[in-house]
Amino acid sequence: MASLIGLLTDFGTRASYVSSMKGAILSICDACTIVDLSHDISPHDIMEAALFLENCCEYFPRGFIFLAVVDPGVGTSRRMLCLRTRSRAQVFIAPDNGLLDPVMQAQGVDLLVSLENHRYWRVARSDTFHGRDIMGPVAAHVAAGIDIAALGPAIDPSTTVKLAMPPQSRVAEDGTITGAVLYIDQFGNVITNVRKEQLVKAGVRQDDMLQIRFHANGKGTRPGIQAPLKRTYAEVGNGEYLCLINSENRFEIARNIGSAATMLGVQESGSLLEIKDVTQHEAR
Amino acid sequence: MASLIGLLTDFGTRASYVSSMKGAILSICDACTIVDLSHDISPHDIMEAALFLENCCEYFPRGFIFLAVVDPGVGTSRRMLCLRTRSRAQVFIAPDNGLLDPVMQAQGVDLLVSLENHRYWRVARSDTFHGRDIMGPVAAHVAAGIDIAALGPAIDPSTTVKLAMPPQSRVAEDGTITGAVLYIDQFGNVITNVRKEQLVKAGVRQDDMLQIRFHANGKGTRPGIQAPLKRTYAEVGNGEYLCLINSENRFEIARNIGSAATMLGVQESGSLLEIKDVTQHEAR
Amino acid sequence: MASLIGLLTDFGTRASYVSSMKGAILSICDACTIVDLSHDISPHDIMEAALFLENCCEYFPRGFIFLAVVDPGVGTSRRMLCLRTRSRAQVFIAPDNGLLDPVMQAQGVDLLVSLENHRYWRVARSDTFHGRDIMGPVAAHVAAGIDIAALGPAIDPSTTVKLAMPPQSRVAEDGTITGAVLYIDQFGNVITNVRKEQLVKAGVRQDDMLQIRFHANGKGTRPGIQAPLKRTYAEVGNGEYLCLINSENRFEIARNIGSAATMLGVQESGSLLEIKDVTQHEAR
Repeated sequence: MASLIGLLTDFGTRASYVSSMKGAILSICDACTIVDLSHDISPHDIMEAALFLENCCEYFPRGFIFLAVVDPGVGTSRRMLCLRTRSRAQVFIAPDNGLLDPVMQAQGVDLLVSLENHRYWRVARSDTFHGRDIMGPVAAHVAAGIDIAALGPAIDPSTTVKLAMPPQSRVAEDGTITGAVLYIDQFGNVITNVRKEQLVKAGVRQDDMLQIRFHANGKGTRPGIQAPLKRTYAEVGNGEYLCLINSENRFEIARNIGSAATMLGVQESGSLLEIKDVTQHEAR
Repeated sequence: MASLIGLLTDFGTRASYVSSMKGAILSICDACTIVDLSHDISPHDIMEAALFLENCCEYFPRGFIFLAVVDPGVGTSRRMLCLRTRSRAQVFIAPDNGLLDPVMQAQGVDLLVSLENHRYWRVARSDTFHGRDIMGPVAAHVAAGIDIAALGPAIDPSTTVKLAMPPQSRVAEDGTITGAVLYIDQFGNVITNVRKEQLVKAGVRQDDMLQIRFHANGKGTRPGIQAPLKRTYAEVGNGEYLCLINSENRFEIARNIGSAATMLGVQESGSLLEIKDVTQHEAR
Repeated sequence: MASLIGLLTDFGTRASYVSSMKGAILSICDACTIVDLSHDISPHDIMEAALFLENCCEYFPRGFIFLAVVDPGVGTSRRMLCLRTRSRAQVFIAPDNGLLDPVMQAQGVDLLVSLENHRYWRVARSDTFHGRDIMGPVAAHVAAGIDIAALGPAIDPSTTVKLAMPPQSRVAEDGTITGAVLYIDQFGNVITNVRKEQLVKAGVRQDDMLQIRFHANGKGTRPGIQAPLKRTYAEVGNGEYLCLINSENRFEIARNIGSAATMLGVQESGSLLEIKDVTQHEAR
């Protein structure tokens, strides 16, 4: 297989950081193919990057190498990791700051090492750019065929830094579902941590009308909206609200040809919400 | 030839959608090369994407595969298309929503099929992301050598959805040219649907002074500007207006080292404009 | 080696310009690999592009081809250049407007030619897009193996356009360092033209407290800040200021998990600043 390396960073594209990292990779392995995943992760937002990886990694081929650098602790004693997953044998290189937490849970760990073998690092190293000086070169060496076990000592996955996730979504006795906003996408769709299984448990059926309320931080609950559970966007009129289970199996609040996030004033991940089925079912 | 697939979407780069689609493609054909065209088409803006393709496709090699996903009707009964063009044998995969309309007119149709053969789709499919689950995999199979005719039944090009274009530009008896804004580029240049041929027909010559007025929607005409027809930007002073026939053979209003769109307050495609030559030619 | 071409432009990604240039390259050399460096250089900002190249080029492999198109003078009599550097044998193709100035100084000139041989240009050429019609095709021909000497006559490097750089940083008798802001990155870090050598000359030591003041243009000096010289960001608390010598050997003013530029109101390159060590060293 051609060696493929996907890059995920919070570097942005205006400064030369991404380019320097690409150069460092290509200088070691010019036969590898670099795939831009995104460089527009919000600065320092480890959770956003972790969810990004979790969302897309299953679609990539076995053996694909993910290099994910969102690294506010660069230059401190934080470890750097190389993970080979159990279920898909994909490789992930990232700082030990929670970024790989969801992927480890989803795919399992085949081998996890701490990057400590300087032999695969740049000789001249800065204290502030380990994507270019350490993790990029390591990814290139893996693409060139180096055994992951040579990169450093194997470590126990339980010792890695865990991600501070929003509270898990859950279903109360009366069928009310509580959850949290994970992110807002390009279209203004509001994606949450509520899953299809929880809607089923709460007795929600296709086309049911749902009442959704967002908690303003510590200031009670904002007036909510009502929106039907649909299969796809164009099942409601332009500008109308709908809910659906999206392509990543997450509960999403959207407007057809419009931004739900803007209309709702929800711009931040972590916002809590409450979902209640308000349909009058006959003989339920 | 190495198989090349160019991606054009309105997905943006912050969310993981583009990455998931790239993964789905590479999982089927890891030897193909993915070329990012743009992921910054305005959300749901089919015309913007259609003009983008029309503008750039002629510069790509024969056999190049364009995967264009701006798909507000995803999950409805709208068809998905695979087009092989007559003049350049390029391949275009997109929803049947007008996106391929200008390309079909420009290059002609060699073969047009409706994507219906599930064999080339992802087995698990969502209702909201057919770029990842259907069109991406189809593009990858074409890159891997599958015959387009195998993707589904051939259809009559006249049955495809047509694009709602702004009114065609035209030249009146008195030489006044009317047209519409197609888009604003990164530099603030205002690109219109007026062509060189129409300037010639109206008797406009190089260096003539043109009066340009924009119609405010249904509210008469805004005060206009005067700008000379030049060959390139630096022929006028910094910050001064000029007009030119641009590299895509379209009439463009620009400012040298400055944004014409911002100064003119023209930010939207579709705005109508009027062009009049106000030069006093001798013995014309 | 696989032929690699890196693209640096101010075209943005919404319009089709970058795509047309990629198409023009791939039509000539479909075996080359295109690497996106950035298309988000500020419109017409030659210095920003020149510093970008200077910052990242040393990390790329020997023989790498850089195609850099920030070209406000397109279509005028300005020359276009192809440079092969002495120390790294890298190739740079760009307009003769100062863009290659820092690279020529850093790597030296092995061969510099003026692009004049039409044989390697697009036959149909516009006056406003030489990235697509001339420099892109030339880069593709170089990737395909054409000798650079065939592209046009060799020229004397001293005849090229020089970049108007901000005043060089310097150290005064009393140890005060003066310098200028070069750019602001994605994180809001303020990067200057002051180098490590100058801090050493001024007697600044690790962890010293520095006073930094920015000159408001022609209006005296704004109230400054004090910040310690650290090795990396996380050595101060969240939101606190620090200074460091960054990964490109430049003096940088930052805030840990925060934007220094926003807090300081410094948004433009070229701003002048003054650095003074205010630590009371014993027995110094």
